[in-house]
Amino acid sequence: MRQPDRHSNQPLYQQIADDIERRISYGEFPPGSLLPSERKLAEQLGVNRSTVILAYAELRALGIVESRTGSGTRVSKYKWGATPKHTPNWHRYVEGGSFLPNLPFLRRVREALQQDNTLIDFASGELGADISPVKEINTLMDENHYTAYLGYADPQGFGPLREALVTYLSQYRGIQTTESSILITSGSQQSLYLITQCLLAPGDAVAIEDPSYCYSLPIFQSAGLRLFRLPVDAKGIRPEDVRSLYKKHRIKMVFVNPNYQNPTGIALDAGRRIELLDVASELGLPIVEDDPFSLTAYNGMPPQPLKSMDPIGSVLYIGSFSKIAASGLRVGWMVAPHSVVDRLADARQQMDFGLSVVPQQVAAQFLKSPYVQPHLERLRMHLLYKRDLLISALRQELPDLVSFSIPQGGLHLWCKIIPEVSDNKLFEEAIRHGVIFVPGSVYGSDSGYVRFTFARPKTDEIVPGIAKFAAALRAVLAQSN
Amino acid sequence: MRQPDRHSNQPLYQQIADDIERRISYGEFPPGSLLPSERKLAEQLGVNRSTVILAYAELRALGIVESRTGSGTRVSKYKWGATPKHTPNWHRYVEGGSFLPNLPFLRRVREALQQDNTLIDFASGELGADISPVKEINTLMDENHYTAYLGYADPQGFGPLREALVTYLSQYRGIQTTESSILITSGSQQSLYLITQCLLAPGDAVAIEDPSYCYSLPIFQSAGLRLFRLPVDAKGIRPEDVRSLYKKHRIKMVFVNPNYQNPTGIALDAGRRIELLDVASELGLPIVEDDPFSLTAYNGMPPQPLKSMDPIGSVLYIGSFSKIAASGLRVGWMVAPHSVVDRLADARQQMDFGLSVVPQQVAAQFLKSPYVQPHLERLRMHLLYKRDLLISALRQELPDLVSFSIPQGGLHLWCKIIPEVSDNKLFEEAIRHGVIFVPGSVYGSDSGYVRFTFARPKTDEIVPGIAKFAAALRAVLAQSN
Repeated sequence: MRQPDRHSNQPLYQQIADDIERRISYGEFPPGSLLPSERKLAEQLGVNRSTVILAYAELRALGIVESRTGSGTRVSKYKWGATPKHTPNWHRYVEGGSFLPNLPFLRRVREALQQDNTLIDFASGELGADISPVKEINTLMDENHYTAYLGYADPQGFGPLREALVTYLSQYRGIQTTESSILITSGSQQSLYLITQCLLAPGDAVAIEDPSYCYSLPIFQSAGLRLFRLPVDAKGIRPEDVRSLYKKHRIKMVFVNPNYQNPTGIALDAGRRIELLDVASELGLPIVEDDPFSLTAYNGMPPQPLKSMDPIGSVLYIGSFSKIAASGLRVGWMVAPHSVVDRLADARQQMDFGLSVVPQQVAAQFLKSPYVQPHLERLRMHLLYKRDLLISALRQELPDLVSFSIPQGGLHLWCKIIPEVSDNKLFEEAIRHGVIFVPGSVYGSDSGYVRFTFARPKTDEIVPGIAKFAAALRAVLAQSN
Repeated sequence: MRQPDRHSNQPLYQQIADDIERRISYGEFPPGSLLPSERKLAEQLGVNRSTVILAYAELRALGIVESRTGSGTRVSKYKWGATPKHTPNWHRYVEGGSFLPNLPFLRRVREALQQDNTLIDFASGELGADISPVKEINTLMDENHYTAYLGYADPQGFGPLREALVTYLSQYRGIQTTESSILITSGSQQSLYLITQCLLAPGDAVAIEDPSYCYSLPIFQSAGLRLFRLPVDAKGIRPEDVRSLYKKHRIKMVFVNPNYQNPTGIALDAGRRIELLDVASELGLPIVEDDPFSLTAYNGMPPQPLKSMDPIGSVLYIGSFSKIAASGLRVGWMVAPHSVVDRLADARQQMDFGLSVVPQQVAAQFLKSPYVQPHLERLRMHLLYKRDLLISALRQELPDLVSFSIPQGGLHLWCKIIPEVSDNKLFEEAIRHGVIFVPGSVYGSDSGYVRFTFARPKTDEIVPGIAKFAAALRAVLAQSN
């Protein structure tokens, strides 16, 4: 049979299943005939037995083959017998949809983490259990009786949560707003998704940072948007670039992550913030400010959000609990003009009929609790400690092979690999060595960059994790010489 | 100024705000000039003062005008002064998005219910608090300590919930499946959305029931699908129609709601279920079976789902808690081949990064609890009681003016108004009389049908509710004579 293509985005088991389905339909394997044993086929194709098992399971699910323990796997009589019965070719449907799948690297990250839970995880962009307010939230959930009738909730979000956010945003971010200007979402991801779906149309040009988290989101391509890059230097993006992109391409929106940007960790320079707002108001251009990290500022003095300096309302502000408290609550928010809030809430009704009130109640309780301030202080200390562990480990293990600038907030360190190295080789080698990260190309950068999320691994995993990474890097460099 | 158009889908306040913005930008109102008082403008335009207040608020939010108590509302100097500053025209963005807004009738329903909470609600398609297992769920939440670390959850859904569903689906629906074939969604709405986005492409033809809940979902149009109708008669859709639609239009998928269909309440005839599956397997055509109501069967014997009679896997099965337990939990599920589950889980990651684990834990607890069976029995009795209240009220109040067939399960009664009547007039008149329902045209039927959801109003609201409806209908008929 056909050797599966290891460089294809399509999983091996799927390629094998497709090949067998094709051969069956061509009559190569008649109804009732015996297929090669899993072991035999695995050898023949040079894949793991588990891969063949998966391929056969897929074909069973499609009713194309039948297995009986002992008697092996046979082509289904039922499906290919006298009266032909056709299972929909699900695989073709799966490939046919208009919404684009995740980038292969990100799927591979998820797959690798599912397959091996001993991997030291510098990839997942979230807080580890050790610095998440798990105890506090559980205490609140135990203390508070959630008696609300669980009917369909307010499409704009749970009222008390929006009230709590008005206070929170004013107190912690200097943003003055009202309940009616807040839309509760399931996180920044959904906020961005709603904006791309409801405020932009296919063919519209938008500007994103380079490198940028946005680049890793197929939602932009799925919406048919044309992406233009705003290079990020040591002070963030250059507002002048926004003006020239507008002149050249009539960009309709600018997406920025100004506070400890993902992946670079850079905070947009204060002067440039003012320039950026001036350019935006000069051009009547909306800015989407994604602000998940600012309260992690290690010195306790987070940068001012653009939204707090935005008198004329150019900024759509996006926030969330995911990076400062618990990603699993799935609670985020957007501050926007009423017309935008209404439009997005209406569309969200169509997509998922709104969020469960349960996590919204928990989030509201948390914001009103005395836990927030102490948790944030503790979080900052822990992140700083983990950042320093990572930095010293990198300096120890790879003194001449990596370079990076030191982030003053956020969860990530953006690291350049000095010698030439293939993202793909380094990534796979690292996994073999028991450590995982996100390759820079996921964020649209050139090969040879790595995003380390130091917030996720336990403190005692960071040093060994970097040792494994260093070993992997050396192995790859040795191969290429 | 321009009289707002009451027949436009665009809210009155927005039309007024746009008109004023235009006039300001044309210089009709120079920077700093005083705008007409709210009272005066309201009179001039013949709208409520509150509408004008909303319009001014919108313009304030855009930085176009400023208000000082006492000194009225003035055109903002800041925005229209020497150095021009332009707020993005959010309204144009809101109208520019590719995702379609809800049908005007549905927006109007939500709006009316928000404005007047004394309305007797035959419109919201959900259980009332009196028949929702609120106590049971709250008890479970109090008894169970949810200690899980709230990190990003499994994109396919909370493992223990999928385990619990395998048992539930086998026990209650005769569906044999595995955890790995189940995708947890936030409800049927999200399941349908993921299918339209990921398995179908713009231009694809699909078949839906006529009348159909699907017709009320802009997600189909937003995905660029061509919709073809399968007329529903007393026994449901005719499988032959599926074959002819396939021949004519190469439909790629069939969406059915076979058990107490929304809105008609009709259950697909047992013989036709088998025919439908035969047609599907003959054509290799996927069927999406949306099954939210079946466990409400008043006689306790729900129809067999297509999925349980589907040996070759033509059926994507969609279920949810919303119509049998608590819509506010936002927990639903889909049973599908692995390749489909993987694809949809991957896309959902992009859209909202998955569901909060909290309501999934609650749902899993509920399914494993001893509460399910007794709750379902109680639910059936209550629904039957409410259905009979509604029927006798309609017979009493409108003996010769309405006709309907009696549903054997579900939450809705589909009612034909015998004399000619305008959906719109009846709808607005009913609201004035203090009662609300969903007009049939929302489901794609001709004018003159009404969907009454008897599950939502309290038992003591149904008779007075229908009295109000009858008065409204008589008033409309009187006008048209």
